Amino acid sequence: IAALCSAVPDPRYREYLIKKERSQQTGGRVVLSEAELQFNVLLDKLKLQEMETSDFPPAMHFFKAKPLIDRSKLFSLLQKMPKGGALHVHDFALVDVSWLVKNVTYRPHCYVCFTDSSSVRFVFSLHQPKTSPQCSKWMLLETLRAKVDNTTDLDNSFIRNLTLYTYDPEVAYPSQDVVWKRFEEAFIAVWGLVTHAPVFKDYFYEGLKQFNADNVMYLELRALLPQTYELDGNINNRFWTMRAYQEVLKEFVGKHPDFFGSRVIFTAHRGINASELTDILKEAIKLQEEFPEIMAGFDLVGREDTGRPLWYFSKALSQPAEHGLSLPYFFHAGETDFQGTDVDQNMLDALLLNTSRIGHGFALVHHPTTKALSRQMGVAVEVCPISNQVLKLVSDLRNHPAAMLMSEGHPLVISSDDPALFGASGLSYDFYEAFVGIAGLKSDVGTLKELAVNSIRYSSLSPQQKEEALSIWQKKWERFVVENLPQ
Amino acid sequence: IAALCSAVPDPRYREYLIKKERSQQTGGRVVLSEAELQFNVLLDKLKLQEMETSDFPPAMHFFKAKPLIDRSKLFSLLQKMPKGGALHVHDFALVDVSWLVKNVTYRPHCYVCFTDSSSVRFVFSLHQPKTSPQCSKWMLLETLRAKVDNTTDLDNSFIRNLTLYTYDPEVAYPSQDVVWKRFEEAFIAVWGLVTHAPVFKDYFYEGLKQFNADNVMYLELRALLPQTYELDGNINNRFWTMRAYQEVLKEFVGKHPDFFGSRVIFTAHRGINASELTDILKEAIKLQEEFPEIMAGFDLVGREDTGRPLWYFSKALSQPAEHGLSLPYFFHAGETDFQGTDVDQNMLDALLLNTSRIGHGFALVHHPTTKALSRQMGVAVEVCPISNQVLKLVSDLRNHPAAMLMSEGHPLVISSDDPALFGASGLSYDFYEAFVGIAGLKSDVGTLKELAVNSIRYSSLSPQQKEEALSIWQKKWERFVVENLPQ
Ligand SMILES: [Zn+2]
Ligand SMILES: [Zn+2]
Repeated sequence: IAALCSAVPDPRYREYLIKKERSQQTGGRVVLSEAELQFNVLLDKLKLQEMETSDFPPAMHFFKAKPLIDRSKLFSLLQKMPKGGALHVHDFALVDVSWLVKNVTYRPHCYVCFTDSSSVRFVFSLHQPKTSPQCSKWMLLETLRAKVDNTTDLDNSFIRNLTLYTYDPEVAYPSQDVVWKRFEEAFIAVWGLVTHAPVFKDYFYEGLKQFNADNVMYLELRALLPQTYELDGNINNRFWTMRAYQEVLKEFVGKHPDFFGSRVIFTAHRGINASELTDILKEAIKLQEEFPEIMAGFDLVGREDTGRPLWYFSKALSQPAEHGLSLPYFFHAGETDFQGTDVDQNMLDALLLNTSRIGHGFALVHHPTTKALSRQMGVAVEVCPISNQVLKLVSDLRNHPAAMLMSEGHPLVISSDDPALFGASGLSYDFYEAFVGIAGLKSDVGTLKELAVNSIRYSSLSPQQKEEALSIWQKKWERFVVENLPQ
Repeated sequence: IAALCSAVPDPRYREYLIKKERSQQTGGRVVLSEAELQFNVLLDKLKLQEMETSDFPPAMHFFKAKPLIDRSKLFSLLQKMPKGGALHVHDFALVDVSWLVKNVTYRPHCYVCFTDSSSVRFVFSLHQPKTSPQCSKWMLLETLRAKVDNTTDLDNSFIRNLTLYTYDPEVAYPSQDVVWKRFEEAFIAVWGLVTHAPVFKDYFYEGLKQFNADNVMYLELRALLPQTYELDGNINNRFWTMRAYQEVLKEFVGKHPDFFGSRVIFTAHRGINASELTDILKEAIKLQEEFPEIMAGFDLVGREDTGRPLWYFSKALSQPAEHGLSLPYFFHAGETDFQGTDVDQNMLDALLLNTSRIGHGFALVHHPTTKALSRQMGVAVEVCPISNQVLKLVSDLRNHPAAMLMSEGHPLVISSDDPALFGASGLSYDFYEAFVGIAGLKSDVGTLKELAVNSIRYSSLSPQQKEEALSIWQKKWERFVVENLPQ
């Protein structure tokens, strides 16, 4: 403080404070190799280019920013970068919806109906299905396509129904209520396709393919584990679903030995009541016992602001641990910007219920005590920038609260939540927003490295698996750096 | 941490953490009287009402929120509340512009011209003024008004030119560049009116009246101290301007003995270079010596993102202290959401230059080291919510970084920056946004009390004056609480 009292600021003291601040940031203490330092020169240059355009993509809505990001050199570098794992992605928002429309809806026996709210429903069936309420008569898509002049227009209208993309999102989605309604609508529209048993397996395979292509080597999936249906009307239960994940993963890893794996976090909708949750938790524990390799734990999903607070479920959620049963939690918490409500307490309650990570934790910075606890417990926050923007928690991503978390070096990972619904894919778009928009100009190759390493460090993998995954990642990383040194 | 390891969360430990967090917030440790606790019941009820509407005003742009706020019971309570001082308000954005149009432009000898960019300029003159570049011929307003069919339309068009108000701000102001251009344009439009010597005095008097009516008892004015002009073309210098402030204030306080006073922070535009600043600082020191009562210190104004960083001026700004001369600083700093730029360093540099307060400090939460230094030095942040929203630093005010500062009990005051330009007035609108949008549902009467007390504690007043002001405020406050107890 002595230096502060002198009249002229001491440039060395200033330098010391700036360095101290940098060292506290995410990636600020990563020791860089000679090659990484060289690579960083390129990275710095490319990031400055992004900031010097008049349309700074992270300041814009993702739907408008995406074409700019697609043209960005920094983005294509981030696509090539080995990003480690994606720890917060939902089961039915993994795959670019055009794959669903162009591939899945062209399969035989696919029926469609159009709802009164101008959305669509799909179902696979051997016979004409029974008409659903608020929906037109079911039409066999093959027949419909033969009748319409322009199947491309029809397919595009399906694609519009299955994502939130729209030309003018600020006008189309004036409030969180409106955008969440649309979000849930899109989720229901996709349902009849992805819960058809053969499609379910193909969908997961395709998802692994797309994340792998985006240089993600590991995936933790928030999965509803729904019943799936066969063409003959047979219904498969949750154990079938879990086995399906296991088999598909085995097949994929067989063909892509570089891909490390995937684990499942079983999720229930927070619309249920406490006694329903108690039943689901019993099933979750059975699944955990039967599929210890692939099952990572449990979570509650759905919009927090309109749902029951976590504390309402605290008794039910305490039961497994009380009975000495292991069921790790990975709670969504703090996906809100209302401060001081019961729901805003979810982050604290998630920690008190021994959560392994916090999904979103958007509101964590409003709670210094909870934030300190999360750090002390080593509980990482899963930051999903594009999701938070599209669902209207924040508009300019430079204001995303993860900027504060990163400036303090809080444990966190970057993930993509529901890339397919947002018109994104894989993990690179969110890495772009995080690196360019949230982490600030002084973030560097160390930041990227720490984010990738965090995604393995804070995963649900065992210590041995983490070590193995890290050493695979390290090799990929070194190759990536060397291949992208500035000329 | 032991409590964390048990299976069932301990509700008492939870309660303890929640209370601990509350106690750290702004106002969390204020001891409340019986009457204040009763009053708080009303406050709580009114705040819940605000949150339960589908259109939550702090989530909307102020231009759209204002009609809702005007109808809010909580707002009319905040208007009546003794708010202490307004410490960050600019000289020519004090007074509702309709006063300028309805009163000032109706005075004799007022000329207008219309610029090529469809703005206006005004000047008072005994003779036809020389035509300005990029502007129409000057027209005597009296003559023009006699010619047009509808003087109300004309007046409204003037009002539109003098504020940033527009029906659809998101469309009209797509970027910070656009809104800042419009902001500067409005400032220039007002210039010819308010720098006319008699208007200058009346304007300040009217400003004091409007803030006093809004239950603000003290004002610190960021003032450019421009030359003013008389009708005969005579020019008055800065000393005249300073004396004018002193005289008007004396007159106002004579008629409103409850009003505590006003002080001036001399401001220069950051567009100048270092040697120009050196000259201005010499003048500032002379003014400080001649007007110690009313002169509080010095500041640099204008958009930071496009201006020179504070560090560029550090030598010049160190000179007064080096020569043992007293010139307190009140720097605007951190009015940016670009992270890691030179400008983003302004907050640290303001502190190193011994600033007394930080104007805006919007980006402070991105800098934990600087934030800690500001707290350690007892340097308060001047938070201006509506200004930050209109100038597009943040859209939903629940995401305003002051929410984090308040959750940590960081020293801060609420101010209104340029209320007239934003279509606001006084301080109450910003208090509403801060209390309802930023401070969260758990903030209470203690929060309001601490914010009001802070505005005196962190003012430039002497310790004795602060004590005196606080005791006047305390009496006003007690009366306010008693008069507004729930029935
Ligand atoms: Zn999610
Ligand atoms: Zn200002």
